[in-house]
Amino acid sequence: MSQKQYDETNPVALKKAELKEVQQKRLRAVLKRAYQNSAYYHRVFESIRILPDDIKSVEELSKLPFTTKEELRKHGYPAGGDFLATPFEQLVGWHMTSGTTGTPVVNAYTQGDIMVWTDLVARCLICAGVTSKDIVANVYGYGLFTGGIGLHQGIQRVCAKVIPWGTGRTETLVTRLKEFGATVITGTPSYELFIAETAKKLGIDAKRDLKLRLAIPGAEATSKFMLQRIESELALTERGGGAREIYGLTEALGPGVAQECPEDSHEWMHIWADHFVAEVVDPESGERVSEGEKGELVLTTLTKSAMPLLRYRTRDITVITESDDEIPHPKIATITGRLDDVIFYKGAKIYPSAINQVVMAHPEVLEYQVVIDNSALNPSFTVIVETANPSEELRQKLIEEISGVSFARPRVEFVKPNSLPRFEGKSNRVRR
Amino acid sequence: MSQKQYDETNPVALKKAELKEVQQKRLRAVLKRAYQNSAYYHRVFESIRILPDDIKSVEELSKLPFTTKEELRKHGYPAGGDFLATPFEQLVGWHMTSGTTGTPVVNAYTQGDIMVWTDLVARCLICAGVTSKDIVANVYGYGLFTGGIGLHQGIQRVCAKVIPWGTGRTETLVTRLKEFGATVITGTPSYELFIAETAKKLGIDAKRDLKLRLAIPGAEATSKFMLQRIESELALTERGGGAREIYGLTEALGPGVAQECPEDSHEWMHIWADHFVAEVVDPESGERVSEGEKGELVLTTLTKSAMPLLRYRTRDITVITESDDEIPHPKIATITGRLDDVIFYKGAKIYPSAINQVVMAHPEVLEYQVVIDNSALNPSFTVIVETANPSEELRQKLIEEISGVSFARPRVEFVKPNSLPRFEGKSNRVRR
Repeated sequence: MSQKQYDETNPVALKKAELKEVQQKRLRAVLKRAYQNSAYYHRVFESIRILPDDIKSVEELSKLPFTTKEELRKHGYPAGGDFLATPFEQLVGWHMTSGTTGTPVVNAYTQGDIMVWTDLVARCLICAGVTSKDIVANVYGYGLFTGGIGLHQGIQRVCAKVIPWGTGRTETLVTRLKEFGATVITGTPSYELFIAETAKKLGIDAKRDLKLRLAIPGAEATSKFMLQRIESELALTERGGGAREIYGLTEALGPGVAQECPEDSHEWMHIWADHFVAEVVDPESGERVSEGEKGELVLTTLTKSAMPLLRYRTRDITVITESDDEIPHPKIATITGRLDDVIFYKGAKIYPSAINQVVMAHPEVLEYQVVIDNSALNPSFTVIVETANPSEELRQKLIEEISGVSFARPRVEFVKPNSLPRFEGKSNRVRR
Repeated sequence: MSQKQYDETNPVALKKAELKEVQQKRLRAVLKRAYQNSAYYHRVFESIRILPDDIKSVEELSKLPFTTKEELRKHGYPAGGDFLATPFEQLVGWHMTSGTTGTPVVNAYTQGDIMVWTDLVARCLICAGVTSKDIVANVYGYGLFTGGIGLHQGIQRVCAKVIPWGTGRTETLVTRLKEFGATVITGTPSYELFIAETAKKLGIDAKRDLKLRLAIPGAEATSKFMLQRIESELALTERGGGAREIYGLTEALGPGVAQECPEDSHEWMHIWADHFVAEVVDPESGERVSEGEKGELVLTTLTKSAMPLLRYRTRDITVITESDDEIPHPKIATITGRLDDVIFYKGAKIYPSAINQVVMAHPEVLEYQVVIDNSALNPSFTVIVETANPSEELRQKLIEEISGVSFARPRVEFVKPNSLPRFEGKSNRVRR
């Protein structure tokens, strides 16, 4: 088995036992590479006085300390810095976060990394049900952000047809979706809903005028109800398709780390265990939680060549479990929150995604905004809800449900349709 | 020779005689393919009652009528329509113009087309002097527009390192250029100048703080003086580099059709004769002009698979001549104007690029705008010039020079630095 080549784009290429073997082998290889070639990880191993061979299994990985986003910023910027595990000459480029609030988080790529990335996005698309017959409108932003180019490469790898839209000009986009008969759409869940709303506004009926069958939402925390809403607004289910979430992060190549399959009911995604070791830890103690318990996702990249990451704290909150369907890769829960998004209010921690989950479950809610005022004298927690059908009953329900998930009692205000902002990329529904 | 494979990325792979042979062979093949597989061209051949074999050489190509942008819009939209010469299933995507003013002009690609395109952009970059050691900031827009993705693919093909910037956030871009030590920058000439200006504003000295060696300006008509200004403002010449124009259009794959080499002094670009037959015709009569005479560039694509174009009117004005350096491919003059940009004023035809050429030749001119008012009562032709050193002498010079190239006498007004708009993509210096 150890020499076996397999089709990296195929989600079911390996049996569970083979997958374990590949993961184990690749883990030992990446530990060795990181120790030998990355100045940063060499120091890490030295500082705790162990050698790569002292870690013989996934279980023993916890001997290593975590790698945090802060360290990546400090030692990996701009071009990869001490994290680089290949000679600089072998790099073919970088992607990075926008860095609006400070140093960007950067990822460096070798030609091999691009190939692995492309294969993994292709695997996600195949897992979601995309075929070479599909016409895919790719509405993730192109450029530094990994979404646009990452999906673009994967779409072409599965020989589907790509409309490289990027973001913006949403009314024209809707017209093009119709003209080209696009069957698949990517993009953030917020943008996909905005597109559905724009179509309606233009008198374009998703069921009658469009041919969309699949949506590949990603790049922001979402909820089962958001995904179901995308399915109904874009008439995906009628065509035997649906919304299938994709997961990833710039540091770990980009999108392509995990993917929802048709059996996952918007609750789970398969995480590719031949390329990533996933652990879930308590964000406070750093201890691994038991299977089925919530915690922070920690990733070890097995095949990244330019910048391998060992025990990288993703800041994303999830649950991990074994697969129960034909795809052998383990599952992580739909990202229900990001540690970086947490709002502190009167000593309580509020997860915006938890609010999203309960608010968007009401079909009459079109959009919403959370407004937090932490001023000492007059703190307030308001949820502004956009709806055509405000009612005292809805208000009470929302207050109850939001209180239930946030441990703080909000004020709920109603506003008319089209009063609140919409989002073409990652949404921002919280004002502080 | 007929079976010889050669390195498509190498600008000097073929000798002149071999190049002629390849062109001839590919021409006969594309005529056959177009006739057999493209419904549009089948009709064209039928309508003039000739067969592909009736055209035995480049000279006999004039038996065919032109293909215009209007026909491409009418019969090729949205997904390629009657122009398609491959089965729809073989397409992997599209690029297109923005279509702000009507139906977009679209190009469809097979996997093979993407490979040809990538090779040709790589050939351009090699011709310009880019090597695998270079760090390239790619500031063409990514997405539907062919600039960003086209250059991206080519940069990775030559194994250089790409920063996939796209456009916008110019101040941050300048910081990244410095941090990453970028050695090459792409983008429209207008945007490259704006970047140089922004660097200055931020106190970043191009010579001291940046490492740029090459600029690859393209996607808009430019002039020798604009290119020289880019070279001096970005300190390219000091590092043994320079600005090297790239030419292309969406319909003919995208950028990668022709490229300025270091010997071309901003006056010429080599056009790749193994992939395109270039003719220059009188825009009115459609007759071929003599070598060395100005006219409209007409392209026949030899290797495009999804949408071959025969005798396509590019609307770009140029001159064609044989090569006089080691690169065997013929040369076209730097695009000195586009027919679509022509301004009509009091019966005269004014080419904005001709104005650009004379105005930007004055180093003290920072930016300018042409304002045309064609109202019957009070027509006016004004050039607003941004400069820190206005003088009556400069005004008189500009009036003389602009009159010389436009056959109309402008009013020249001066405004202070930073009064006029700058451009991140294609510039628009004409207000009507």
